[in-house]
Amino acid sequence: MDLSPVPIIGGTGALGFGLATRLAAAGVPVVIGSRRPESAAEAAARLRERVPDAPVEGLPNEDAAARGPIVILSVPFRAQSENLTNLKQVLQPEQILVDATVPLAAAVSGKATRLLGVPQGSAAQQAQEMAPDGVTVVSAFHTVSAATLGDLDRDLDEDVLVAGDVKQAKRAVAELIVRIPGLRPVDCGRLEAARMIEGLTPLLIGVNSRHKTHAGVRLTGLPGELW
Amino acid sequence: MDLSPVPIIGGTGALGFGLATRLAAAGVPVVIGSRRPESAAEAAARLRERVPDAPVEGLPNEDAAARGPIVILSVPFRAQSENLTNLKQVLQPEQILVDATVPLAAAVSGKATRLLGVPQGSAAQQAQEMAPDGVTVVSAFHTVSAATLGDLDRDLDEDVLVAGDVKQAKRAVAELIVRIPGLRPVDCGRLEAARMIEGLTPLLIGVNSRHKTHAGVRLTGLPGELW
Repeated sequence: MDLSPVPIIGGTGALGFGLATRLAAAGVPVVIGSRRPESAAEAAARLRERVPDAPVEGLPNEDAAARGPIVILSVPFRAQSENLTNLKQVLQPEQILVDATVPLAAAVSGKATRLLGVPQGSAAQQAQEMAPDGVTVVSAFHTVSAATLGDLDRDLDEDVLVAGDVKQAKRAVAELIVRIPGLRPVDCGRLEAARMIEGLTPLLIGVNSRHKTHAGVRLTGLPGELW
Repeated sequence: MDLSPVPIIGGTGALGFGLATRLAAAGVPVVIGSRRPESAAEAAARLRERVPDAPVEGLPNEDAAARGPIVILSVPFRAQSENLTNLKQVLQPEQILVDATVPLAAAVSGKATRLLGVPQGSAAQQAQEMAPDGVTVVSAFHTVSAATLGDLDRDLDEDVLVAGDVKQAKRAVAELIVRIPGLRPVDCGRLEAARMIEGLTPLLIGVNSRHKTHAGVRLTGLPGELW
């Protein structure tokens, strides 16, 4: 069992902190990254309150990103490009960058129920374009509610749609996802499929607001063995 | 219980015929439309073989479309515009047009796992733009497998994501959908949400080919009462 720490860039945000919480609760060491070192440290302390003895550190994003082979990028789309620029000198070949960014129109003061068009096709493809050579981007975690992740009293029972161009990288991310009880990773094909997956977030935001809930996605009709 | 017939434009295609089969099996009268009258009649006869005493007729599209208040449009994207032009003199105010069209890149000899960009935002919005004044477009049926619909031996257990600008029209379509056992309609907001919903079809086509299955979609975390 690989116990390398999982750096989470933007780990003080709702989705990043939710993922950190679930991973730490599953015994996976996490490194919460933030632009501001004091915010990272505060979030790590907050996580340790929720998960006693949680294997968690808080570090500036650039330091965090060097700490493990699978790096989760969980920042608002508005800040994605800047974050990737800051990580250019940090990320190393063979690292996997899990992009959870959603190009909501809210990034340009539009509605959270609308998707922006990204020149590369999707936020994940923009991440791949900006990542250093040898770094593989995998798209994941767009449909899992941050609120539900962050609340350990709530059971998860949904899928994580995964896309990427390198099967082995997707498999490594899938192995991380299954560490969180109740999440099932589903391979949705090449990285360009992120365009369709990212579109599910604004759709769910609308459903959530209509029904005062935190909806997720489950694909039906799949075989038991997926990877 | 409204027993108006449901015209299905393009009802000889796989999705249209699958919907016709399930609706007829549920006792809903259907009118299978086709460009070619003999194909429509042949499909109606084929449906009666599967569902004895099925309340089904086969008619040319233009005649079929006049036969009921809720008209399902189930044609390849390549033919959507031509079909809507042909229906311009036929569709009447107050009719609801259920658009099930998916703008797959396959329409321009590209991959079925890729989505085309439609100038209006989605195929459903194109349908609304081309429909006569007073006709309301509702987007639905994009994630339900044609093969599964067509095989009455298989149980359905999935959602139909519905989008549209008129709540009452969506509700009427939802009432039709629940006539088919195993399908749950979910209101996904305004018609522009069709852009995200239509994107699920190429995603599922990829998943299906990877896992040799007919996947569907289920939203998790929703309350019991949705409409």
